[in-house]
Amino acid sequence: MTDMPLAQLPRTMLEPVIRRALDEDLGLAGDVTSTAVIPKGHASEVVACARQSGRIAGLDCAELACTLVDPAIRVTRHVDDGDPVVSGTVIATFEGPSRSLLIAERTALNFMGHLSGIASVTADLVRRVEGTRAAIACTRKTTPGLRALEKYAVRAGGGMNHRYSLSDAVLIKDNHIAIAGGVGPALTRAKQAVGHMVKIEIEVDTLEQLAKVLKIGADAVLLDNMDPATLSDAVSMIDGQAIAEASGGITPDSVRAVAEAGVDLISMGWITHSAPCLDIGLDFVGKQG
Amino acid sequence: MTDMPLAQLPRTMLEPVIRRALDEDLGLAGDVTSTAVIPKGHASEVVACARQSGRIAGLDCAELACTLVDPAIRVTRHVDDGDPVVSGTVIATFEGPSRSLLIAERTALNFMGHLSGIASVTADLVRRVEGTRAAIACTRKTTPGLRALEKYAVRAGGGMNHRYSLSDAVLIKDNHIAIAGGVGPALTRAKQAVGHMVKIEIEVDTLEQLAKVLKIGADAVLLDNMDPATLSDAVSMIDGQAIAEASGGITPDSVRAVAEAGVDLISMGWITHSAPCLDIGLDFVGKQG
Amino acid sequence: MTDMPLAQLPRTMLEPVIRRALDEDLGLAGDVTSTAVIPKGHASEVVACARQSGRIAGLDCAELACTLVDPAIRVTRHVDDGDPVVSGTVIATFEGPSRSLLIAERTALNFMGHLSGIASVTADLVRRVEGTRAAIACTRKTTPGLRALEKYAVRAGGGMNHRYSLSDAVLIKDNHIAIAGGVGPALTRAKQAVGHMVKIEIEVDTLEQLAKVLKIGADAVLLDNMDPATLSDAVSMIDGQAIAEASGGITPDSVRAVAEAGVDLISMGWITHSAPCLDIGLDFVGKQG
Amino acid sequence: MTDMPLAQLPRTMLEPVIRRALDEDLGLAGDVTSTAVIPKGHASEVVACARQSGRIAGLDCAELACTLVDPAIRVTRHVDDGDPVVSGTVIATFEGPSRSLLIAERTALNFMGHLSGIASVTADLVRRVEGTRAAIACTRKTTPGLRALEKYAVRAGGGMNHRYSLSDAVLIKDNHIAIAGGVGPALTRAKQAVGHMVKIEIEVDTLEQLAKVLKIGADAVLLDNMDPATLSDAVSMIDGQAIAEASGGITPDSVRAVAEAGVDLISMGWITHSAPCLDIGLDFVGKQG
Amino acid sequence: MTDMPLAQLPRTMLEPVIRRALDEDLGLAGDVTSTAVIPKGHASEVVACARQSGRIAGLDCAELACTLVDPAIRVTRHVDDGDPVVSGTVIATFEGPSRSLLIAERTALNFMGHLSGIASVTADLVRRVEGTRAAIACTRKTTPGLRALEKYAVRAGGGMNHRYSLSDAVLIKDNHIAIAGGVGPALTRAKQAVGHMVKIEIEVDTLEQLAKVLKIGADAVLLDNMDPATLSDAVSMIDGQAIAEASGGITPDSVRAVAEAGVDLISMGWITHSAPCLDIGLDFVGKQG
Amino acid sequence: MTDMPLAQLPRTMLEPVIRRALDEDLGLAGDVTSTAVIPKGHASEVVACARQSGRIAGLDCAELACTLVDPAIRVTRHVDDGDPVVSGTVIATFEGPSRSLLIAERTALNFMGHLSGIASVTADLVRRVEGTRAAIACTRKTTPGLRALEKYAVRAGGGMNHRYSLSDAVLIKDNHIAIAGGVGPALTRAKQAVGHMVKIEIEVDTLEQLAKVLKIGADAVLLDNMDPATLSDAVSMIDGQAIAEASGGITPDSVRAVAEAGVDLISMGWITHSAPCLDIGLDFVGKQG
Repeated sequence: MTDMPLAQLPRTMLEPVIRRALDEDLGLAGDVTSTAVIPKGHASEVVACARQSGRIAGLDCAELACTLVDPAIRVTRHVDDGDPVVSGTVIATFEGPSRSLLIAERTALNFMGHLSGIASVTADLVRRVEGTRAAIACTRKTTPGLRALEKYAVRAGGGMNHRYSLSDAVLIKDNHIAIAGGVGPALTRAKQAVGHMVKIEIEVDTLEQLAKVLKIGADAVLLDNMDPATLSDAVSMIDGQAIAEASGGITPDSVRAVAEAGVDLISMGWITHSAPCLDIGLDFVGKQG
Repeated sequence: MTDMPLAQLPRTMLEPVIRRALDEDLGLAGDVTSTAVIPKGHASEVVACARQSGRIAGLDCAELACTLVDPAIRVTRHVDDGDPVVSGTVIATFEGPSRSLLIAERTALNFMGHLSGIASVTADLVRRVEGTRAAIACTRKTTPGLRALEKYAVRAGGGMNHRYSLSDAVLIKDNHIAIAGGVGPALTRAKQAVGHMVKIEIEVDTLEQLAKVLKIGADAVLLDNMDPATLSDAVSMIDGQAIAEASGGITPDSVRAVAEAGVDLISMGWITHSAPCLDIGLDFVGKQG
Repeated sequence: MTDMPLAQLPRTMLEPVIRRALDEDLGLAGDVTSTAVIPKGHASEVVACARQSGRIAGLDCAELACTLVDPAIRVTRHVDDGDPVVSGTVIATFEGPSRSLLIAERTALNFMGHLSGIASVTADLVRRVEGTRAAIACTRKTTPGLRALEKYAVRAGGGMNHRYSLSDAVLIKDNHIAIAGGVGPALTRAKQAVGHMVKIEIEVDTLEQLAKVLKIGADAVLLDNMDPATLSDAVSMIDGQAIAEASGGITPDSVRAVAEAGVDLISMGWITHSAPCLDIGLDFVGKQG
Repeated sequence: MTDMPLAQLPRTMLEPVIRRALDEDLGLAGDVTSTAVIPKGHASEVVACARQSGRIAGLDCAELACTLVDPAIRVTRHVDDGDPVVSGTVIATFEGPSRSLLIAERTALNFMGHLSGIASVTADLVRRVEGTRAAIACTRKTTPGLRALEKYAVRAGGGMNHRYSLSDAVLIKDNHIAIAGGVGPALTRAKQAVGHMVKIEIEVDTLEQLAKVLKIGADAVLLDNMDPATLSDAVSMIDGQAIAEASGGITPDSVRAVAEAGVDLISMGWITHSAPCLDIGLDFVGKQG
Repeated sequence: MTDMPLAQLPRTMLEPVIRRALDEDLGLAGDVTSTAVIPKGHASEVVACARQSGRIAGLDCAELACTLVDPAIRVTRHVDDGDPVVSGTVIATFEGPSRSLLIAERTALNFMGHLSGIASVTADLVRRVEGTRAAIACTRKTTPGLRALEKYAVRAGGGMNHRYSLSDAVLIKDNHIAIAGGVGPALTRAKQAVGHMVKIEIEVDTLEQLAKVLKIGADAVLLDNMDPATLSDAVSMIDGQAIAEASGGITPDSVRAVAEAGVDLISMGWITHSAPCLDIGLDFVGKQG
Repeated sequence: MTDMPLAQLPRTMLEPVIRRALDEDLGLAGDVTSTAVIPKGHASEVVACARQSGRIAGLDCAELACTLVDPAIRVTRHVDDGDPVVSGTVIATFEGPSRSLLIAERTALNFMGHLSGIASVTADLVRRVEGTRAAIACTRKTTPGLRALEKYAVRAGGGMNHRYSLSDAVLIKDNHIAIAGGVGPALTRAKQAVGHMVKIEIEVDTLEQLAKVLKIGADAVLLDNMDPATLSDAVSMIDGQAIAEASGGITPDSVRAVAEAGVDLISMGWITHSAPCLDIGLDFVGKQG
């Protein structure tokens, strides 16, 4: 299935996040090392290189980190967000005052490494379920302060975004059900409460709960922690009446079996909260000009 | 060796970070699910439970996420930041209005899971080097916007913090050396430039570079990507004239050998940028009162 | 039809908006009049009274404006957000230091008047369409900086919220259609691009366009600027295959006829961007205590 | 009488307000519709057109909304803030990437519509009192967060600004008088308290109060809720000793009679808090170039 | 002459300024010294003592610095803002956790010292002109970011505030006159441009300029850099038709002569931008309880 | 001894501080005077001139204040930060729209005057200790909100920065010692608590305390309020085992004697908190072009 084409987030969404990261790294005195060691007028050309295979995300962040430090830095991209790289791929070239490049370096790499890490694990999962109807999705289990960027990185990896926030849709989970007194009352109350424009999804742990849900009706069902066989039965029961989403404890090793059970969506918190950084380094190419 | 006792970060440092995370999660309408499903006056008691072994960090963040959403939430801690937990350990109890608890839940867990993940990998590394003189340290390779919290999580895991920002100390790395024209000129320029209160550390890749550094003098030497045998030679050469720090590609499997080479400090970027989340869940205990 | 129960927005969503409003009103010297005229220890009891009929929204904002100025102010509510009032209804009582009450007064009233104005016109429209299947909805035509609060006020008036932001759903409008080269290409591209969890709505001006849309399929159709007879034909054509939304130039006088054409949703930008303030005043009741 | 020439507010005053409005509208994913429907490299030319008669304000805001989204958007103005328009007048042309134009569109129009609405009702009132000595003024009854912009819009409509904030001048109102124990004590206390550089205005409801005020002296008198005949008597009594300001329940229909009573200033809260939006639309002109 | 009674600035005006100051001082790790040296549960009582004579301002800031760090700190004031102190006067007592007190100490003292320094030089000048009609005023020459607080400190010292910002009033200075082509054109243009509610002040360097100004009329005249004899002639010429303000190079030694020339207002930039800090220290009294 | 070469702080560190200062000065209406008096298209050339001798700091701030108000302003520098000036030295030329120049003027001068004042007193002290081994340093006694800029100004004057924040290093002061129960326990606890990368400094009042400190060992000793003879004895006792810092009551008159006692560092709070502004004015040169 096809996902949404990858669009850059407008600069106005990125700028405050990047300014905060630069603030953290500059402290109160700025870069004491470069000031001491690098001659004032010195200019350089550096390249960002992948040190392992993966999928790139965060080029806009890296470029903005550089130009917020010094508008004189010029960035040339050799790949785009969403593109695959292998170890050694030159991602982008940065030219400008050496001191400014050294100030921006760590912040630019921290963004690119973090977001490319997420894009890379997502792309790997998307590849693993190729040929099935299942899309790979992230959750609200994101790193505090980076949700918009991490959701973007998932899209860059070919994944799909679930709810962005608590505002987006009704998602009735185990604790809601417990408080409401069961799947039935929870779902009925939600359907009475919200209008026809709000989607309702409900989490079920068993096929018995699923049967109750299907009798009342819901837009989507989150099939929580089911094994592939049970998932397959669930998909049969649902039979197109709702979107079937699998979640809970799914790993790269198990994702194919889950997808082959016929679900529409496989969501995993770990692709945002636990994806390791993609290893990207900045190499000094030579004195500019 | 003993590390700094773990001190809470003052609330004024945590508040803006947590408010941003809540903003992200609340969107423009707040929690549409709880509004629809949970009766207005309903109160609950929920517990945060570890679902795997590790080291806890982020309790202040979790508590503040709750009380910023609703000051009526009361939090009782059963462990402190820095304490070890096993799967099943009850970390804290949260009592208050059910809607408010469900609003704060994800943000509280996102902080606790992320920071406990960092504390846990740090604690594991500290345990692995027990009995050697080596301390475990993090770097500036942190998740954008979370540096103060991630550095704190490293301390909660028994680790030590290196530079907080570019302001803190001189750290002359490969690119600085390349631009300055070698280890000698770089170090000499730094020593001339900064006063006696600023520490100078320099990265070396070979024992030849190390010899040059030791002739000029530096407070600390970062021994980059050396195997344990070379590290051991380097430590002998340094012979207490500078702090010996090992860095570059060190993993849980190799850390013991690195430590036994006699270095003072082992720094790893991945303990902040790639530590997986510690799995912590919130369980509904019952209607309050 | 029933709408979502009205939930308070968490304090963390309101606080920055109210702080900005207080900043505007305090200038650099604070309240020079009260300082000059009101004795320092003087305390008062004031009541907020409706000076015309309507629906109340914004009590949390008013209360927070007071307590941010001075935590010593105590607020007692006599009605809740969403309640109807007539001229003379006492909405809330505010007790505390007179200087503080006079500082907070205008900001509290500006919020309550603005939001109650929106709730009131919404409630009037909801009453006018009573007995039909149509819900009253607002749009993204909101006052800059106040979207979450204005959407909330619409809910307080018994209305329903459409998209909160450009992130929420696909809404293909006339300019998109023009650029994409017609309803067909625009809709097809959207369906290919987005996954099954994203709703797609498309604007149509004519029944011919509607026919094309229905052949391709969409979750909702925005019937733009159609007269009741055409709307009725459109509803027949749609026949439950999509949500039917009427929009464009609808007024209190015409809203009943539009609703009786059978649409599901009637959206109007003016209920947020042009609703007049509800007239609410603060009356001094007497010296406190 | 002549008002202050209309000056643009410096960009530094507008930027935070516009960034907040863009944030609201972009959500966490940006514009999902344009991403899905509009080809990446597509460029357009769109024009902002008045759909009704009025007075324009907010062109700087609209332009800044566009260029903050994408610096590649070029704006050409065909009228200036403060200029009259009729239905069909082309206000400005916007050229640039189609996706960026569609992202900025709603925010740009929300600002222009809101501010032009205020400028338009102000200009209408100014025209109605032409030939009298009365100026039209706004109050502190503004929309929270937009005071500087709304005051500017009043100036664009030919009106005059009263107090900007509580810091600006002493304005003794009914509640102050009640607490202070009458017009006399309130005014005396104010005159003793403030130096010669602070203007003092006091609200009076009756000619008896006015007489007391004039005996003590004040820079301006706010004649509250008086009919034209009483206003005329008040103006005679004041006889140039103070600025005479009429306020309270004044409408477009009554404003001429109030002005002809000879007052210097007519202030109305509704021109900022209840002015309907001016209807302005963006029309797609064609593919750029 | 009597000045405005001193009113506390509302907490909402102080909080952002104090949070920024705490942020600066806490860095990314908080207080490493207290963490290392002070036992966790230790509580203390400390007193703020004047180490020289002066006038106090900034107690609210000091208290808020403490309670933002730790709400458990209790503050008891022994003097109020605006009160005189001598060396040894105990200003306030702070009780609470020792670590928190040591974290807040420097920020609290930095505010109190800076603002009391301004209040003290102001009070000294006010005393020097006692018995004359002259009030002491500050200007817009304030320390960036602290204008509201510095203006408040001037009031605490018995002084008066001139314009708070460029918005407040027309003040035509030498550069405006030069560009406008002389005192006449500048003043005439201002009078035509602004309404009757805006005060107009104009700077004059000579009695010739003053004569031109008086012919046209202005609310206030700034007599720039005139010696006492010329000032006296100027006051005679003005003869109550405008407020007479002296400015330019006035020192504690010359202020009395300037005041005796009969001016209404003496304004000095240095009382805000160059007042030395008042020396206040925090003394440890003993273990609490 | 040589200090760190003076490096500009990156723009991203300056921008928020300068925006806040402009906000303060613009109020809600912007510059009413220039709007009224200066013709719209008028352009000027103005020069910033020193009106007394000193050392310049803050040119980046002044330039940014101008370009944030209006990007059309062009700035040409005739001296750099850190350069000496005498009365009459032309520091920089500013060309652009006259209204914009007049709006930015005060903010630009407030920054330049404040920071140059600090640089100037620092440079004077540096000159006074020339030929000794002592460096001049500032403390954490800075003006709230301006620490990074004031520390930079000290560097511009040839001075050296001590701790930037509480995070930077351990500095055990009198209150810590009192609570810890003496120099011995305080220092021992600190040495046990912190790792080898954190510097420890301790304050001593007497040679007896110093002896205890030297027995335990510390990186630096702050010799508080000692006369030159005692300082000299202290330096002999320290004998290169720690950095010797003198502090407490040191003035321009006494600084030479302190330096000649042989200390490494002389720190004074007053060079940041009580340095008078350097007098710099803006002069109108002529109509541009």
